Amino acid sequence: MEIFFATTNLGKLGEATKILKEIGIKVKHFPFVYNEIRSDSIEEVARDAVKFAYKRLKEPVFVEDTGLFIEKWNGFPGTYSAVMLKKLGNEGIIKLMEGEPNRAALFDTCIAYHDTNGTTVAHGKCYGRISESIRGKSGFGFDSIFIPDGGEQTFAESIELKNKLSHRYKSLLEFSKSLKLRR
Amino acid sequence: MEIFFATTNLGKLGEATKILKEIGIKVKHFPFVYNEIRSDSIEEVARDAVKFAYKRLKEPVFVEDTGLFIEKWNGFPGTYSAVMLKKLGNEGIIKLMEGEPNRAALFDTCIAYHDTNGTTVAHGKCYGRISESIRGKSGFGFDSIFIPDGGEQTFAESIELKNKLSHRYKSLLEFSKSLKLRR
Repeated sequence: MEIFFATTNLGKLGEATKILKEIGIKVKHFPFVYNEIRSDSIEEVARDAVKFAYKRLKEPVFVEDTGLFIEKWNGFPGTYSAVMLKKLGNEGIIKLMEGEPNRAALFDTCIAYHDTNGTTVAHGKCYGRISESIRGKSGFGFDSIFIPDGGEQTFAESIELKNKLSHRYKSLLEFSKSLKLRR
Repeated sequence: MEIFFATTNLGKLGEATKILKEIGIKVKHFPFVYNEIRSDSIEEVARDAVKFAYKRLKEPVFVEDTGLFIEKWNGFPGTYSAVMLKKLGNEGIIKLMEGEPNRAALFDTCIAYHDTNGTTVAHGKCYGRISESIRGKSGFGFDSIFIPDGGEQTFAESIELKNKLSHRYKSLLEFSKSLKLRR
């Protein structure tokens, strides 16, 4: 089975390709440039994006929106994670969290899939905390400052852990189950 | 002369009403809920918004987009100023700037006006710096952490100064001149 992933993020593409391959789904890349809506909900962003992608591609396609939600800062950067990463980098987040006892954070992913039957969504969450410093070289985005609950390493220090535990992995798993139900 | 201002920000409405009244223009409020595009350019955001407002209202109308651009953080929060103010508040900006020698910042406003002749834009800039702490009670938004060049007080400590010096004042002045040329 083959399916399109509409994204410009090669980090996301690599992870999804690897994870879905293990369950027999081949990911094809649809390089997709699109102006995301402003919303605090990753599901709203993903639902809007996938409709736009389907309109262009006219083939079954999914998109993925991920946000890092920091409790202390009211869910910042949330749905603005990609643009805030560009402006502030991991350095900016570490600075915002300096001396902060409440370091709780959530990585939240929503996959939206669209075909002739309409849109379905799948979610994946990973709770954790913001590290005290930038650590590790693997992964991408905020991986080097996020420690999942129960762990001591950041996602960027243990990519194997990430691929078996992450918000993205969980959402892709839920997504693949829903695909099997539909087909 | 009467003209609509499409906004949900009552702080902006109050300032524009006061400033334009002094030059003989009466501002009417169009409470306008609209999903802004994501862009790093306040002019792009304003141009898109005013077209949408005009389509709804079908009367000559202007919108205003303002961003605070901090040099150290690559123009953060910029066009995301309103949403970042909600998440981080002035407190978050002060924290990001702790111990930072480069405190340069720019308040940039773009007014976009649309009538049967199409869209025109007016700009207003105010250069300054981020204060070391939150100071003053007047104004709104980031006024209590912004000190204009040549001054020692934040905009929130001296609203009279703000109304004669600010990005918003300058953009409204340029806007009113362009209106006179058009009519």
